[in-house]
Amino acid sequence: MIKPVGSDELKPLFVYDPEEHHKLSHEAESLPSVVISSQGPRVSSMMGAGYFSPAGFMNVADAMGAAEKMTLSDGSSSCSVLCLLENTDAIGDAKRIALRDPNVEGNPVLAVMDIEAIEEVSDEQMAVMTDKVYRTTDMDHIGVKTFNSQGRVAVSGPIQVLNFSYFQADFPDTFRTAVEIRNEIKEHGWSKVVAFQTRNPMHRAHEELCRMPMESLDADGVVVHMLLGKLKKGDIPAPVRDAAIRTMAEVYFPPNTVMVTGYGFDMLYAGPREAVLHAYFRQNMGATHFIIGREPPAWVTTTVPSTPRPSSMTKCQRAPWRSRSSCRPHGLLQEAEQDCDDARRAGSHQGRLRTALRHQGREMLGQGIAPPPEFSRPEVAKILMDLLPVHQQLILIWFSGKTRPGVGRWRVFLCAAGALWPEAVAVANMEKRSSTG
Amino acid sequence: MIKPVGSDELKPLFVYDPEEHHKLSHEAESLPSVVISSQGPRVSSMMGAGYFSPAGFMNVADAMGAAEKMTLSDGSSSCSVLCLLENTDAIGDAKRIALRDPNVEGNPVLAVMDIEAIEEVSDEQMAVMTDKVYRTTDMDHIGVKTFNSQGRVAVSGPIQVLNFSYFQADFPDTFRTAVEIRNEIKEHGWSKVVAFQTRNPMHRAHEELCRMPMESLDADGVVVHMLLGKLKKGDIPAPVRDAAIRTMAEVYFPPNTVMVTGYGFDMLYAGPREAVLHAYFRQNMGATHFIIGREPPAWVTTTVPSTPRPSSMTKCQRAPWRSRSSCRPHGLLQEAEQDCDDARRAGSHQGRLRTALRHQGREMLGQGIAPPPEFSRPEVAKILMDLLPVHQQLILIWFSGKTRPGVGRWRVFLCAAGALWPEAVAVANMEKRSSTG
Repeated sequence: MIKPVGSDELKPLFVYDPEEHHKLSHEAESLPSVVISSQGPRVSSMMGAGYFSPAGFMNVADAMGAAEKMTLSDGSSSCSVLCLLENTDAIGDAKRIALRDPNVEGNPVLAVMDIEAIEEVSDEQMAVMTDKVYRTTDMDHIGVKTFNSQGRVAVSGPIQVLNFSYFQADFPDTFRTAVEIRNEIKEHGWSKVVAFQTRNPMHRAHEELCRMPMESLDADGVVVHMLLGKLKKGDIPAPVRDAAIRTMAEVYFPPNTVMVTGYGFDMLYAGPREAVLHAYFRQNMGATHFIIGREPPAWVTTTVPSTPRPSSMTKCQRAPWRSRSSCRPHGLLQEAEQDCDDARRAGSHQGRLRTALRHQGREMLGQGIAPPPEFSRPEVAKILMDLLPVHQQLILIWFSGKTRPGVGRWRVFLCAAGALWPEAVAVANMEKRSSTG
Repeated sequence: MIKPVGSDELKPLFVYDPEEHHKLSHEAESLPSVVISSQGPRVSSMMGAGYFSPAGFMNVADAMGAAEKMTLSDGSSSCSVLCLLENTDAIGDAKRIALRDPNVEGNPVLAVMDIEAIEEVSDEQMAVMTDKVYRTTDMDHIGVKTFNSQGRVAVSGPIQVLNFSYFQADFPDTFRTAVEIRNEIKEHGWSKVVAFQTRNPMHRAHEELCRMPMESLDADGVVVHMLLGKLKKGDIPAPVRDAAIRTMAEVYFPPNTVMVTGYGFDMLYAGPREAVLHAYFRQNMGATHFIIGREPPAWVTTTVPSTPRPSSMTKCQRAPWRSRSSCRPHGLLQEAEQDCDDARRAGSHQGRLRTALRHQGREMLGQGIAPPPEFSRPEVAKILMDLLPVHQQLILIWFSGKTRPGVGRWRVFLCAAGALWPEAVAVANMEKRSSTG
């Protein structure tokens, strides 16, 4: 089985011994405590679950190094992980504190931290990290805005994680730690494993996106890895999404080739750097390959709809590093940057076409007509039509992929879809030009 | 896939819609509330997770019917599920209340109940239920004592479950709902599925117990279903047990034939009736067959060590009912009763032999000597020797099985073990006599 990044074994920060867990929970109630920023619980959950493995929140030097060179002061690879507070009034001189969850009622304790440093982060340092990670410092970019809306006091030190925020409680049948996914991959007996992230029910296009690398790589299985989080207005409810995905997997994939799982995190909209972070997550959970979709590594400026939305960027990427001795995150970063540039150049035109396509789908569903089988499997469409409230049947999201050598069937599929949905052919052809031009 | 008991689909009482879940959690904080008995959270967790499916806690008529005839007033099969309180002072006239968890610090809300009835249970009714379920009213029996130590006021009505007590939080990589296990069985592509319950690391005997029915039934896979709960002094820590079981499965079973899972419940020591309840759990989670081990359906009077401890009762039982139209819980009950009687007759003699055997194992481990390969796989022994504190290496528990027609290899294994451990042969032969005599 593929090893976690830079280590022979996973190092989840969750306190697994129940006795120790109870003791620590009890102790935490009497420690000085601070409610961390709303990004914090997702990060501590991912560290708790073993998806990535710094020992805790970083000091500024390490965070700057990770942002600039993707390496820490000890030479190991990592992404920046800061705990940024407004001030340390609640902490005082304490060396051991409880970190509380801003996203759950009552602000329960998430983790206990042994403080190693409290540092102020200068505006210049914030700007450098922002620029390195997001490749822009434009505060209209939602990722830039979220990162910079935190305080300027970095509290750092190792943490012991006590829970997975609301993710495990809200999604009890779907949430998985990296430890669990590794265990389950072993149980399935898979060695070559493709990971696919989604936030939505999987339509025909998503299904093909999973099938193509499975076939071209002769992989044993695909782990559908759902991004779990609080729903926004118009999102498909989690139980409906789960049912749709499980039905698709059950009916259209051979037995023992699909696992449906979820994890608690957020879109960062950090472009190519986000692809590197996701590679880290996927390798740690035991996937040997992962599919880079349109959105995870993309710049998406949702606050400014007129900004060109980057286009599809669909490829299957081998887990980019296997051990400290053969680190290749920079290779992945370069490829992802090139893809994003290609995508951005083509973005404006494609965006218009895709919008037209999506509207056609909405119209059909709005009229109670099932979408054509090229868009959605009938079993999946039925679940969505049966279980979704009518107003939500209008927001099914169309997902498009980019044509590349070796993934020709994807284009073929789009062309076939074009018999009913002529714009698809235009998208496919235009994408072909942009990828070869 | 096998259907849940008496229904076409699972009816877990957990509130799956996150929005609804948050709303209900918020509402629950202002409802009149009551801390339920320490048995309650296990029962509500099992209902929440879909392992069994009454709509909530029963009224006295239904509980009496379930105890006496294993059927409810509407004719459906069930076991008794009562919420017994000392008094209703905290509830008053409320029709909607929050049930709080006595087993977690701060007594968080477990579930919300819409009260349909509040009834006093007479001593006579308690005695009838006790006798029917435990086949004794002796208060020295630990199950009888626990059941009767609750209050006499039965609060009944449908519940909506908000969490799985401490089971999910304490065992994040192992705890599974019945919904999850069904999903995973589908993902594995299994149709004939054997369930095996354990509380301990699996030694050679446990391994064979899983392998035999797999082979004789030509089953697709076995679900190891660990009983999760608070540890008692001397118990193997959960992470050590998990590692030992996963290693055994990985090294000694073919790929895609073992799932390692856990659920939150307690031993009831309710003899044959417990076998029926476990059949219910196992069928609901999607197993077509389950192994009845020595302890789950046994009378064990742990408070009175001199009481004969029932012997091994090992068999593989087909899930006893498939739908309401072909209910067969009574058949299972009769078989389990016969087995328990056989076991009890042979109990005293076997108990002494098994104790001798266990002491030999303890001595070896106490001296730092790995147990022989007939007792424990070397990989499993290594994990136990490496990870357990020394004092805990003394409490490895020997598990013995009963020889029966069709499970001859089990006896063969015991005889082979006898080359090193002569008492094993005596146990095997004696068991052979008792089962055929």
